[in-house]
Amino acid sequence: MDDFIFHNPTKVIFGRDKEQEIGAELKAAGVKKVLFVYGLNSIKQSGLFERILTSLRENGINYTEFGGVVSNPILSHTRQGVALAKAEQVDAILAVGGGSVLDEAKGIAVGALVDEDLWEFYAGKEVEKALPVFTVLTLAATGSEMNGNSVITNEETKAKWNIGSIHVYPKVSILNPALTCSVPPDYTAYSAVDAIAHVIEGYFTKQPGSRLQDRLVESIIKTVIETTDLLMEDPDNYAARAEFEWAATLALNGLTPAGIGPFSFPNHMIEHSLSALYDIAHGAGLAIVIPAWMRWYSARSRTPSQFRRFAAEVFGLHDPVAGIDALEEWFKKIGAPVRLADAAIPNEDIGRIAANAAHLAAKWGIGEEYNSAVIAEILHLAV
Amino acid sequence: MDDFIFHNPTKVIFGRDKEQEIGAELKAAGVKKVLFVYGLNSIKQSGLFERILTSLRENGINYTEFGGVVSNPILSHTRQGVALAKAEQVDAILAVGGGSVLDEAKGIAVGALVDEDLWEFYAGKEVEKALPVFTVLTLAATGSEMNGNSVITNEETKAKWNIGSIHVYPKVSILNPALTCSVPPDYTAYSAVDAIAHVIEGYFTKQPGSRLQDRLVESIIKTVIETTDLLMEDPDNYAARAEFEWAATLALNGLTPAGIGPFSFPNHMIEHSLSALYDIAHGAGLAIVIPAWMRWYSARSRTPSQFRRFAAEVFGLHDPVAGIDALEEWFKKIGAPVRLADAAIPNEDIGRIAANAAHLAAKWGIGEEYNSAVIAEILHLAV
Repeated sequence: MDDFIFHNPTKVIFGRDKEQEIGAELKAAGVKKVLFVYGLNSIKQSGLFERILTSLRENGINYTEFGGVVSNPILSHTRQGVALAKAEQVDAILAVGGGSVLDEAKGIAVGALVDEDLWEFYAGKEVEKALPVFTVLTLAATGSEMNGNSVITNEETKAKWNIGSIHVYPKVSILNPALTCSVPPDYTAYSAVDAIAHVIEGYFTKQPGSRLQDRLVESIIKTVIETTDLLMEDPDNYAARAEFEWAATLALNGLTPAGIGPFSFPNHMIEHSLSALYDIAHGAGLAIVIPAWMRWYSARSRTPSQFRRFAAEVFGLHDPVAGIDALEEWFKKIGAPVRLADAAIPNEDIGRIAANAAHLAAKWGIGEEYNSAVIAEILHLAV
Repeated sequence: MDDFIFHNPTKVIFGRDKEQEIGAELKAAGVKKVLFVYGLNSIKQSGLFERILTSLRENGINYTEFGGVVSNPILSHTRQGVALAKAEQVDAILAVGGGSVLDEAKGIAVGALVDEDLWEFYAGKEVEKALPVFTVLTLAATGSEMNGNSVITNEETKAKWNIGSIHVYPKVSILNPALTCSVPPDYTAYSAVDAIAHVIEGYFTKQPGSRLQDRLVESIIKTVIETTDLLMEDPDNYAARAEFEWAATLALNGLTPAGIGPFSFPNHMIEHSLSALYDIAHGAGLAIVIPAWMRWYSARSRTPSQFRRFAAEVFGLHDPVAGIDALEEWFKKIGAPVRLADAAIPNEDIGRIAANAAHLAAKWGIGEEYNSAVIAEILHLAV
């Protein structure tokens, strides 16, 4: 095991109707006024917006509304949020939505306390402080509810960059699985791919030899697969939504990579370019990239024991390649795209995508392993 | 899945030589003076004491020394620590040792900030505040380094009671697996039993149906078994010490019971009486109780699916009873006692032990299921 620091101070409140506790949690933290960040008007139609306002009112919490966060949240809108947070002098950010809303809320929390433009932090400047972030999650996928990550797209440059800081771990995240029952089958599938993607990056790219962390990863993947299958049959299965949601949270809360040593995020690196250039769902992009990357990586005999483990432990198969095939088949079964054409991405764009992704590879320190020629080679396996 | 709250704010710093960072962590937290709590003089002989003092000095942290914590820490000594913490006006407790030292340090942290006697909190009064606790762990077993639990024995009444509070989660726990390499084989075995005991209580006594949490438990048990086997061959195997330590920490940090619903600690309940009455190691007592309790519980067809899972997932066996036998055989193999006589406890004391344990069963709210007659019946399976 390598050295590590594990520090995840987020308080998770999990269960039915728990969003009603948000006001009390804000009050207990001494918050007087929040910026209430959300995405679409669907939270108003569903009644969630009003239930949260009731909880805020009952606890004397003032708020300023800031809706309109889009999937793959964009810098210009985040900047508007920063300006509003400053103008209204809020002392916390309340995010109600999925990973995009949470990620933008974290960006606003950082930008609200500094004079410089928040993009500087996504470009690499260290985050030293942020307003406290509170969340009510409506889509289980990204893990943003229990980590210090935020991804924002600069729509001018098409750069999709991230920050990671202890200061943007949510203080409190409320997870009511019933709120995710309205997620349609396609987005449930993309979310499943996303959660799996979060754990397999470390699993395959680290050095072998961390048996506990490998088992935690396999536990999460098997749970995501089983509960997703149940949800494809019955989207209202609360028990399956609940296990799916907790698995997705644990998939990116620091638990699985603790002690595994250096690893990289090649699938996320390539996918970020797909969703930045084509605005497809992050999980859909990952479903295209992952089988291609796995075939490319395993064919080069990288970490062969991990590919054997994966096939055996997750699918009960003895051949490592059969494990990759099984994962791809499962992606198809739940309706996720597995080829560029499935997402209407022209094969002739591969060069352009690879060039974009190579920038991120360089930023993430894996540019030597993944130059644009290599990325193009991987993407050709998704043709 | 049942509703739950997961909130574990402890910062874990894991790796070789990390104890040298304790002074900087205390300084960063604004601490000026600590009560330095430890057990035996072995930490002076090993040089650990001096290394920590160096780190304190380099960061301008003052300290008052308080040694002499015993295994199964006792109330009178904890009270002395409280008096010293008050007299010396320390603003944090630094615990260097195993679970006993950490547990007593938490008790001191609670007692130091109140006027009433600290035993009132172990008797049930709610903890509302405590001095911050910092730890350097030298024995992986109890999980105290990353939870809010503390167990103290009142040596006058023989009551071994506990507190659980968010206020006594360590602020920072430093885990250097190399510090555990000097743990002798018998205590390594007891520690393995203890870690396994922490996860199986919930696993067997909850209602079935939380597949992710079951898998996390099985992942921890399999890792403890494999790494203990390696350590019986080579106590200095750093990689095995490291995986063992992290598994023991995760075994009681709130992760495995999240969402599993109501469950109980019958094995701990019975064992607390064994170690309170006979002063045997906690893990040794558990090794005696667990196989007996499992046979008693499974024979009554309680949660049969869990006993089937356990046999299959942990030992690859199809018969649930064979799974219990295999665990008992493994306890014997690593040198843990599995019968009362193995620990020189007279069989004729069963009535007395059962009477003592029944008090704790009542305190823990399982007195109806576990009266003294039932406890005696279980203990007779350990004859």
